[in-house]
Amino acid sequence: MTAAADGAHSSTPRRFPADAIEQFCRDVLAAAGADKATVDAATRAMMHGSRLGIDSHGVRLLDHYVRVLTEGRVNPNPNLRFLRKGGATTTLDADDAHGALAAFFAMEEAVRMAESFGIGAVAIRNSSHFGPAGAYALAAAERGMIGMAMCNSDSFVRLHDGAMRFHGTNPIACAVPVSGERPWLLDMATSAIPYNRIQLYKSLGRKLPAGTASRGDGEDTEEPGEAEMLAPLGGEFGYKGAGLAGLAEIFSAVLSGMRLSFEIAPMFGPDYSTPRGLGAFVMAIRPDAFGEDTGFEDGMRRYLATLRGSPARAGGKVMAPGDREWAEADRRAAEGIPLDPDTLEAFRRLAEGYGVGLPGNGDA
Amino acid sequence: MTAAADGAHSSTPRRFPADAIEQFCRDVLAAAGADKATVDAATRAMMHGSRLGIDSHGVRLLDHYVRVLTEGRVNPNPNLRFLRKGGATTTLDADDAHGALAAFFAMEEAVRMAESFGIGAVAIRNSSHFGPAGAYALAAAERGMIGMAMCNSDSFVRLHDGAMRFHGTNPIACAVPVSGERPWLLDMATSAIPYNRIQLYKSLGRKLPAGTASRGDGEDTEEPGEAEMLAPLGGEFGYKGAGLAGLAEIFSAVLSGMRLSFEIAPMFGPDYSTPRGLGAFVMAIRPDAFGEDTGFEDGMRRYLATLRGSPARAGGKVMAPGDREWAEADRRAAEGIPLDPDTLEAFRRLAEGYGVGLPGNGDA
Repeated sequence: MTAAADGAHSSTPRRFPADAIEQFCRDVLAAAGADKATVDAATRAMMHGSRLGIDSHGVRLLDHYVRVLTEGRVNPNPNLRFLRKGGATTTLDADDAHGALAAFFAMEEAVRMAESFGIGAVAIRNSSHFGPAGAYALAAAERGMIGMAMCNSDSFVRLHDGAMRFHGTNPIACAVPVSGERPWLLDMATSAIPYNRIQLYKSLGRKLPAGTASRGDGEDTEEPGEAEMLAPLGGEFGYKGAGLAGLAEIFSAVLSGMRLSFEIAPMFGPDYSTPRGLGAFVMAIRPDAFGEDTGFEDGMRRYLATLRGSPARAGGKVMAPGDREWAEADRRAAEGIPLDPDTLEAFRRLAEGYGVGLPGNGDA
Repeated sequence: MTAAADGAHSSTPRRFPADAIEQFCRDVLAAAGADKATVDAATRAMMHGSRLGIDSHGVRLLDHYVRVLTEGRVNPNPNLRFLRKGGATTTLDADDAHGALAAFFAMEEAVRMAESFGIGAVAIRNSSHFGPAGAYALAAAERGMIGMAMCNSDSFVRLHDGAMRFHGTNPIACAVPVSGERPWLLDMATSAIPYNRIQLYKSLGRKLPAGTASRGDGEDTEEPGEAEMLAPLGGEFGYKGAGLAGLAEIFSAVLSGMRLSFEIAPMFGPDYSTPRGLGAFVMAIRPDAFGEDTGFEDGMRRYLATLRGSPARAGGKVMAPGDREWAEADRRAAEGIPLDPDTLEAFRRLAEGYGVGLPGNGDA
């Protein structure tokens, strides 16, 4: 990825209206043979990333998704089915669907189960790369429920004191509805830093923060060029980050009987034709299903008001999870979504290949 | 607390058989007026801490628990009731019970609901200090289920970039059953370090690790004497630790309608007669309730075998969550449980006050 795609670079990338980018994604995915459900879900997930400023999981993935949908890794017309009906838990066999379709579909079922039982959990099997975990947690919050989503992915993060790539960046996301405002939204990798930070700092010639990346022998390095793996969240207390990665691994891959992180083929080739056997996990909880009115809405308001009004240290700013992303979403709604040069170039290739109009009146 | 209680000191504390210490706790709690359920639960929780080497939540709490049970903060004969029946979620109104009784009782109900629905979640209200979160998660794993437990507590941890005590150390615990061996057991505070580490390092004259504690203005300090608050887990990426603390806060206090961390009276006085209005949250998940056999047991074995066999960096050792604690439990089962001088002194006072025999043939 390029520096611009990370949003941390000072160059001014070109911006396009969200609607135009969204339509382009739909047109390209449909032209590539994806069924309507896949087009809807993959576009919704990518636009979540691109609207909220999480560009690593935004529309820069379109090119990759076209490749895996057309070369066989991902099934463009999957037959999704649930393995169990009747309780508040089930497994979705996603038939090698796009990971966003699997996750949104599973969360719909979790929400349905939570309507009946107060809570619903779905293990997902035979899925694929699912992009921004927060998108699926948010889908529950938009229905007035607490949502959680996790997945595992191919190994890139060492264990605490470890010297091999063991876990994926294994994100954990949670969204909580807040009356009258946008949800509280936590979406965090369990690694110390995101993988793309290494590539960004390499291109910028900057040193990495201490304790965030390691060489092949597990020793920490601040040189992006030496980094062979990421550290788990927590530095000296990295057993906590590694433990949280394990939690995501167990919920995503062990409950669903899928591949563990260290058994998963790499996301970026060389093989794009074999399904990767990814798992995931989603859960929905209905806040008003715990008995008499416990004042949930008032509690969230009180919590957030105190948090946002609390003193910051010099030069800092106190924010709730999601505040930064919602502010960026407002900015992008007004100013458009920035596309980095590599993504723009890929869009031009896709537009030409599929005979589809580019976003922004064709001047992309 | 003393250095010895942390287990990180080189002095040799006196050791006593677990059974003798357990009987002493039971005798003292009963003599102090606690009903049988309270005696059982509080003793079980403290012995979890003392057996597994988590001494901050072990029997050193006995003296404190006697005080709050006799002075009115904690109800020694509570009438526990559930606010809702019928689904997979409910709230336990604990009637100001000891937090361990509330949490074990709630987890029993979560397990019952998971037997029927695959999953069960209980919000806990009107509870009190609950000690080691891992004890309640483990209670589910001992029944073959995945258990989770969280709570909030009086504020001692700043937000990311924050300059006030906002969250408690808000632990998150998860236990996962493993066929033929002891459970995978994660029990972590969402702060960068435990509070008692500051007191320990102060007594040892050592500096704190960077980025783990702050002065009153929120600036980090490595001087234990200057520390006014803890940092959230994650250092430069402390928004992750703060987000996880928020997750525990929302599940524990907002779902249950209880006090937020910054609204909770301090654990250690001056008032020991008013209930503190603590919340908590427990959840049980039945691994075989997700559909056809997905190979959960095999998955956990494969995961743990690869983890424990993976290379460590120089001087390090790779462990799964709980491995350190289970090894310490073996050691303590063989050699006895160490009691620090302050705890021994409190035991002597309690023995005399209640006419109860001390552990270890009265020579404590």
